[in-house]
Amino acid sequence: MEKRAAVRGGSTPEKVFASVLRELRKEHGLSQEGLGYESGYHRTYISMLERGMMNPSLRTILSLAKALHTPASEVVGRVEELLNPARQ
Amino acid sequence: MEKRAAVRGGSTPEKVFASVLRELRKEHGLSQEGLGYESGYHRTYISMLERGMMNPSLRTILSLAKALHTPASEVVGRVEELLNPARQ
Repeated sequence: MEKRAAVRGGSTPEKVFASVLRELRKEHGLSQEGLGYESGYHRTYISMLERGMMNPSLRTILSLAKALHTPASEVVGRVEELLNPARQ
Repeated sequence: MEKRAAVRGGSTPEKVFASVLRELRKEHGLSQEGLGYESGYHRTYISMLERGMMNPSLRTILSLAKALHTPASEVVGRVEELLNPARQ
């Protein structure tokens, strides 16, 4: 919870997505390179996503979610939960 | 169900998102112009999205979902359901 709370202040969708992606990747025991391999993206793109530098597209979200064996709706749900904690 | 089934064959994420967006917009009784106004996008961009011409970004999905008073996770969930009907 502390890690989640930490991204709340002044966060952007990119930064929150970065945090969710890193969290899910680690939950699945994957390196950035491993996730890149599974999803078809270069590890440097994964790294940029995890630094909140990119606004991922629907296709990217779907590909990453598939590689993480997680519904994309859950990925986006986690992002929303962190962006709008009061609504949950 | 028939309308949903119709988009299954050879669909792309863009086409399925288009169908979901149009469906949600109509459920909320909004015109393309109205949704554009609510979400901050031009009606021509809404029209392009609803024709499956664009791969929307996370920010775009979040903005449209907010304007439609619908969780973005539900929007993406509907897209997944149509892309992978067997998994549901």
